[in-house]
Amino acid sequence: MMKSRTDYLTFNVPQRMGFVNITADVERIVGESGVQEGLVLVNAMHITASVFINDDEPGLHEDYRKWLEELAPFDPSPQRYQHNRTGEDNADAHHKRQIMGREVVVAVTGGRLDFGPWEQIFYGEFDGRRPKRVLVKVIGE
Amino acid sequence: MMKSRTDYLTFNVPQRMGFVNITADVERIVGESGVQEGLVLVNAMHITASVFINDDEPGLHEDYRKWLEELAPFDPSPQRYQHNRTGEDNADAHHKRQIMGREVVVAVTGGRLDFGPWEQIFYGEFDGRRPKRVLVKVIGE
Amino acid sequence: MMKSRTDYLTFNVPQRMGFVNITADVERIVGESGVQEGLVLVNAMHITASVFINDDEPGLHEDYRKWLEELAPFDPSPQRYQHNRTGEDNADAHHKRQIMGREVVVAVTGGRLDFGPWEQIFYGEFDGRRPKRVLVKVIGE
Repeated sequence: MMKSRTDYLTFNVPQRMGFVNITADVERIVGESGVQEGLVLVNAMHITASVFINDDEPGLHEDYRKWLEELAPFDPSPQRYQHNRTGEDNADAHHKRQIMGREVVVAVTGGRLDFGPWEQIFYGEFDGRRPKRVLVKVIGE
Repeated sequence: MMKSRTDYLTFNVPQRMGFVNITADVERIVGESGVQEGLVLVNAMHITASVFINDDEPGLHEDYRKWLEELAPFDPSPQRYQHNRTGEDNADAHHKRQIMGREVVVAVTGGRLDFGPWEQIFYGEFDGRRPKRVLVKVIGE
Repeated sequence: MMKSRTDYLTFNVPQRMGFVNITADVERIVGESGVQEGLVLVNAMHITASVFINDDEPGLHEDYRKWLEELAPFDPSPQRYQHNRTGEDNADAHHKRQIMGREVVVAVTGGRLDFGPWEQIFYGEFDGRRPKRVLVKVIGE
C-alpha cells in the first residue's frame, strides 16, 4: 500500500537574498507521513527561489551570496536584463535560482531522511520580502 | 496498488538554442496516467539539452540565452574545448545543460501538477536542428 | 506492492577533482531491486561532490575541470572564501558541486535504466583523497 503526504511551508525572508535551514521541517513531515521506505521531494514553488542541500556554515553562505551576485548581478534597469522591461526588477533572481536549483529529492530509509554527515536542506531566497511557499511531498510505504 | 506511466516527447528545435514550454504535454500525460498522488519525472534524454522550470516570459528567455553564451560560449574550434577535438562542435552545449539541469521532479496532488503560480516546464535545447527526446514518467496511486 | 532497495557506494578519488562513471553500479542495483517500473535516486552524500549525467568523453571532462576552476577557483586562503576561515580549504568544492548538482533521478522501465543514447551517470569529486559515499535508492514495483 503506497502512502503519500503533501505539505506546504511558507517563508518570508526580510532581505532580498537569504538562506533558511528547513531540515527540521522536512524531517517532521517525513515522520508524520508514516513512510518508512520512499522518497521525499522538496521544491520551491516560486521561480525566484531554490531548495538545495549544502553546509550550515554562515561563512559559506556569505560566499554563495557574493558568488551568485558576480554570476548574475542584481540590476533593476532594463539594459542588462530584458526581463526587467516588463516592470519587474528580479531578473537576477531567476538566474541565481538556476545555479542553486529548484528542488531536492531525498531518500527516506527506516522512516528518516537518509543523509550523509553534513547534508542540510536550505530554502534559498533571491527575491524576498514577501511570503513564498515550499512544497514537501513524501511517497513510499 | 502503484500505477506508472511512461511517455516520450520529441522536439526538433530549428535553432541551435531554444526553449519550448512543455507544461501542457506533461499535464496531459499525468491526466492519462490516472495517478492521483505521486511524482512525475521529466528529463532530457540527450546530454546537450535540459528540462527546467521557470517563467514563460520571452525577455527572460533572451536573458538566459545571453547569460549562457557568456558562461559557456559556442566555439567549434578545438582550442577552447578539448571535446571539440573529437569532431564535435557542441562542447558548449554540454556546459550550458549543466547550468540549466537535466530534469525536474514535480509533485502530483489530486491528479494534477502541484505548481506554484508561475511554474512552467521548459525543454531547453542547446544543440538543436535535429529531433531529440524527453522522457515523462509518472508513478503513484 | 511497492518495492524498494537502498545501497551505498564508496569512492576514494586520488585527486582533488575527478569524475567516475558509476552507470554499471547503478544498473546492477536496479537489477537486484526487482523493480520493473519506478524511479531510482542517485545522490552524493557529501556536500563537496556531485552526481550528474553527461558524456563519457575524457576531453569533455577536461573541459569541465577547467570551466569549474574558472567559475570557482581553488583557493585555500581565507581572503577569497569566508568558509576557509573555519580551517577548511574546500570552499571552492562547495561551489563546484552546486554547478554540477547533487543528484539525479532516473526512470526505471522494464527493469532497466530508461536512458537516451549517450546518458551515463558520473560521480563528480571536488575534494577527494578520502572515501566518500553515494546513495542509490530504487522504488517502484
